[in-house]
Amino acid sequence: MTTSSSADIFGSNEKPVDWSRGNLSVKNGVQCRALEVGTKPSFSVGNKFQFDDVIEAQQFDRDTLSAIFDVALEMEKIEKNSRGSQILKGYLMATLFYEPSTRTRLSFESAMKRLGGEVLTTENAREFSSAAKGETLEDTIRTVEGYCDIIVMRYFENGAARRAAMTANIPVINAGDGPGQHPTQALLDVYTIQREIGKLDGIKVGLVGDLANGRTVRSLAYLLAKYENVKIYFVSPEVVKMKVDIKDYLTSRGIEWEESSDLMEVASKCDVVYQTRIQRERFGERIDLYEEARGKYIVNQDVLNVMQKHAIVMHPLPRLDEITVDVDVDPRAAYFRQAKNGLYIRMALLKLLLLGW
Amino acid sequence: MTTSSSADIFGSNEKPVDWSRGNLSVKNGVQCRALEVGTKPSFSVGNKFQFDDVIEAQQFDRDTLSAIFDVALEMEKIEKNSRGSQILKGYLMATLFYEPSTRTRLSFESAMKRLGGEVLTTENAREFSSAAKGETLEDTIRTVEGYCDIIVMRYFENGAARRAAMTANIPVINAGDGPGQHPTQALLDVYTIQREIGKLDGIKVGLVGDLANGRTVRSLAYLLAKYENVKIYFVSPEVVKMKVDIKDYLTSRGIEWEESSDLMEVASKCDVVYQTRIQRERFGERIDLYEEARGKYIVNQDVLNVMQKHAIVMHPLPRLDEITVDVDVDPRAAYFRQAKNGLYIRMALLKLLLLGW
Amino acid sequence: MTTSSSADIFGSNEKPVDWSRGNLSVKNGVQCRALEVGTKPSFSVGNKFQFDDVIEAQQFDRDTLSAIFDVALEMEKIEKNSRGSQILKGYLMATLFYEPSTRTRLSFESAMKRLGGEVLTTENAREFSSAAKGETLEDTIRTVEGYCDIIVMRYFENGAARRAAMTANIPVINAGDGPGQHPTQALLDVYTIQREIGKLDGIKVGLVGDLANGRTVRSLAYLLAKYENVKIYFVSPEVVKMKVDIKDYLTSRGIEWEESSDLMEVASKCDVVYQTRIQRERFGERIDLYEEARGKYIVNQDVLNVMQKHAIVMHPLPRLDEITVDVDVDPRAAYFRQAKNGLYIRMALLKLLLLGW
Repeated sequence: MTTSSSADIFGSNEKPVDWSRGNLSVKNGVQCRALEVGTKPSFSVGNKFQFDDVIEAQQFDRDTLSAIFDVALEMEKIEKNSRGSQILKGYLMATLFYEPSTRTRLSFESAMKRLGGEVLTTENAREFSSAAKGETLEDTIRTVEGYCDIIVMRYFENGAARRAAMTANIPVINAGDGPGQHPTQALLDVYTIQREIGKLDGIKVGLVGDLANGRTVRSLAYLLAKYENVKIYFVSPEVVKMKVDIKDYLTSRGIEWEESSDLMEVASKCDVVYQTRIQRERFGERIDLYEEARGKYIVNQDVLNVMQKHAIVMHPLPRLDEITVDVDVDPRAAYFRQAKNGLYIRMALLKLLLLGW
Repeated sequence: MTTSSSADIFGSNEKPVDWSRGNLSVKNGVQCRALEVGTKPSFSVGNKFQFDDVIEAQQFDRDTLSAIFDVALEMEKIEKNSRGSQILKGYLMATLFYEPSTRTRLSFESAMKRLGGEVLTTENAREFSSAAKGETLEDTIRTVEGYCDIIVMRYFENGAARRAAMTANIPVINAGDGPGQHPTQALLDVYTIQREIGKLDGIKVGLVGDLANGRTVRSLAYLLAKYENVKIYFVSPEVVKMKVDIKDYLTSRGIEWEESSDLMEVASKCDVVYQTRIQRERFGERIDLYEEARGKYIVNQDVLNVMQKHAIVMHPLPRLDEITVDVDVDPRAAYFRQAKNGLYIRMALLKLLLLGW
Repeated sequence: MTTSSSADIFGSNEKPVDWSRGNLSVKNGVQCRALEVGTKPSFSVGNKFQFDDVIEAQQFDRDTLSAIFDVALEMEKIEKNSRGSQILKGYLMATLFYEPSTRTRLSFESAMKRLGGEVLTTENAREFSSAAKGETLEDTIRTVEGYCDIIVMRYFENGAARRAAMTANIPVINAGDGPGQHPTQALLDVYTIQREIGKLDGIKVGLVGDLANGRTVRSLAYLLAKYENVKIYFVSPEVVKMKVDIKDYLTSRGIEWEESSDLMEVASKCDVVYQTRIQRERFGERIDLYEEARGKYIVNQDVLNVMQKHAIVMHPLPRLDEITVDVDVDPRAAYFRQAKNGLYIRMALLKLLLLGW
C-alpha cells in the first residue's frame, strides 16, 4: 500500500493520538463500515493506523506494541463473549499462500471471519495461472488487489512481502517470507509473555533449542530488546547456537544475556522457557548430530519441577518430542494459549489496518 | 468435546426431554445465537443435544434417530422455502480433511452456510505445517479448536475421530475415518428410507454389490437392526460376501436375513434395492475376478421392471456402471435425492451440536 | 439448467423486456432475496434473464451485451462506493475447478462475495471422490447442484460446460472448458473497450501475438463482428497467424481486416492494441522458433510513443515480457483495469442469472 493512506476513505482523522500514553484501545461510539445492511454500529473507526502494511516485527516500537496489545485484548473479549463481531462486514481478505501453512492460514481466516469479514483463499498460489509459469509477483499482486481489501501473503523468498506491499494499493500482511520475517508470530510471542506474566520489563527468558535457524527466537530476542532490564539465556546444542548478530545487537541495547548448557538451572530462574524444535533438515546427512541435538534439551516434568509457580513454557508449534506430552496438563504449559493469542493479534492487526485505531 | 457440555454456554437447560415420545423437533420462540447483528430470532435454542460429538452411527438409538430425522425435515423446509437460515450466524466450522473427499466436504460446508454459519476449510491437512511432519493429531486439534466452534474431520485411520473428540473442547463430527465409521452417511441412508418409504419397521431391503468391504452397507445393516420386522437380502459376488460378524449381529437381534444370487427375485420383493460399487482395489492383481464381480449384478431397466411401484433404488455414490444411466429418469431412482438428504442430516447435526434441540 | 426457468421461483414475470432499447439496467424498488434476515431491500428483482446459463460468448447479441454492460457499470458503483452489496445474501455459488486457475476462480469468488453471496470452492475437482475415479461429469453435477444455487465450472475438455448445463437444474457459468470457450473473458474484453474508448462501433483494434492459439483473441474477433465499421489488424509471427475460419467469418459479416507485420504502424492507427502471450508449449521442441516469435512484437515505450492519446493497451494476463514493465505506469496501459472489469462482468452475470434484470 502506498503512503497515501486509507484515512480519507474513512473520513475520520480527528482525535490525535498521544503515543506516549500507549493505551490506544478501541474507542466506542464511532461509525461502522457495514453497508447496505441494517446492523447497528457496534465498533469504532478512529484514527488511522500509522502503518499501511505489516511487513516486519521491527516496524513497531514499544508504545505501538503496547497499543496493539490493548486492541488484541479487546479482540479476546469479542471472541469469548459474543461469538464474533461484524466490524469488518463487507471487507474481503485474500490469503495468498505460495507454500502451505495451514496453521497460519486458518488463524488469519478465523480472525477475519470472527470480525464479520470474508475471505478469498488460495493455498497453491504458485500455480496462479494454469497457463503460464513466470508471472511476476508484482503482476499477481496487481490483479489480486482488484478482488479484495487486504492481502495476507506467505512466500518462499525473503523480501517478497515488502515487494508486494510496494506494489499494492491495499494493505499487505506478511505471513512469513521464507527465512525472512513472520511478524505476526513475533507479536503473538511478546503478547503472550505480557498476557501470561503481566509485564515485559524485567523479565527473564530462556530460549531453548535451535537458536541458529529458528526465525521465531531471533525475532523474539530482537523485540525483547525494546524492553528494560530483560535477561535472556540461550540454551542450545553447540551446532545450533544463537548467532553473533543477535548477541551483538542485545549487547548494544544493554540487554543482559548469557549462554548456558544447564537447562535445569536456567528453567529455575526464568519467567519464560521458550522451547523450539530442532529441525532435521538443518543437519543434512549428519543424522547423528541431529539425533544428539534433539535429545539434549527436553522440557519435561523434571524441568517443570524446578520452574517457578508463575513461570510459563512457550513453543511456536508444531511440537514433536522436545516437550513431553505430560507437560500439557500443567497450567504453566502456555503453548496452546500462545497459539490462540495469534488469533487475537491477527484480529487486532486486521482491524487496525482496515479501520484504524 | 468433554462431557462438561455446552449447555451452560447457552444457559438453557429447562424443558426436560421425554425420549419415549421421539418427536423432539425444533421448538419455537427461543433465543437466537446471532450476536451483535440485528437479526430477529427465527429459531430456537432448546434443550441440550445429548451428545457432544458425532463419532459413530451406533451412538444413536431409534428414538434419537427419529428426533434427528424430524430436525432434518425442518432443515429441508428451510433450505427449500427460504434459501437458508441465519441460526448459526457467528459460528465457525473447520473442515479438517486429511484425505480429499470433495463430495462430503462440500455437503458439510453447504449445510453450515445454509444455516448462516461460516467455514474454515483445509483439504490437505496432512501438510498442516510446511515445516514439520510429525505433529500429533491431538496437537493439531488443540490448535484448530482455538480457531472455530466445531470440527468436521476426515482421517485415514480408524479411531481417529474418537481421539480428536477426546482432545477437543468443542464438538467433533466424524466425516469418515479410514475403514472405520462414516456416521453421517449411515444416518442419511436410514433417513432416506424413512423419507421415501415412510417407515422403517417392516421394510425389506436388498443390499447389493460389495458387501464385504462396503462401509455403508455394513453400517446400514447395523442401524436397520434397531427396527422391527425388518428383512434383509444380501446379493453379492462370492468374493465380496457380507461378513459373518454382521450376520451374527442381525441374528442376535432377531432380524431376518438371507443370501441370494438372484437379484431379480430380490428386487421384486424389496422396498429398497441398495446398490454399491465393486471396488477394484480390493481385488489386487486378480483383475479377472474384479471384472467378473462388477458385471454380475447391475441395476438396469430389467430390474426396474420387476420392482414394486413404491420401491426405490439407493446408492451411496459415486456410481460407475453398476446402475445404468437410463435408470436415472425413473422416479424410483432415489440416489441423487439420497445425496441431497445428506445435506439435511448434516444441517440437523450442526444445529443440534451447536444449539441443542 | 433446463429451460423451465427460475422465473417461477422468483415469481416475477411481469414487465416484458424491450430488447430494442438495450438499456435494461437494474431497476429500483423491487424485492430482495435476502431471507430470514432483517436487511432492507436494496436492490431489485426484475424480469428474468433470458438465459439459464452462460456457456459461450456467441449466445449474446449486441443489445444483450449492451444491457449486461449497463449492469456491470452498476456493479462497479456498488463495489467502489459501498464495499459491496447484500443482494445475493443467502445464495451459494460452487466453484468447481477441474484445473487450477486461481485468477479466474478468485475473480468469481470475489464477485459473489461482493454481492453478499457465499461460496463453496474446490480446486481439485478431479479428485471429487477419494474412492473412485471415473464418476461422470453429469453425476458430479447432479450431486453438486444439491449443495448450491449456481455452479461456476472450469474443465479441461471442450463442450463440458454445455454438458453440465444440460444436466443441472441450476445455472452454470463456463469459466473455461479447455480449448473451447471462456465467455466471461470475452465479455470483459469487449466491456473494457466500451468502458475505455466509449464506443464499439467504428473502433480499430490491433490483435497482436499468438493469434492461432489464443482463445481470447479469437473470441474477441468474433464478438467485434457484432459491431459496425470495425477494423481489425492482425499482427503476429508467421507460425501463429490468425486462422482462416475467423478471417472468413469477419469477411462474411462485412468486417474489414488486414494482416500486418508492422506493429508500429498498426499501433499508430488503432484505438486498442490487444497484446497476447506467445505460448511456449505450442512450439514443441522448436525452441528456436519460439524464441524468434516471442521477441518479435513487444509493446514497449516505442510503441506507446506512436499510439494515440486516447488509445489503450490490453492484455488478458498473465503477462511475461511481451509488454515491458515500464509501460505499466502509462495511463493507456489498461490491462489491470481490464482484469478488474472481469470482476464487474462476473458480478453482473451472477446477479442476472440468480435475480434477473
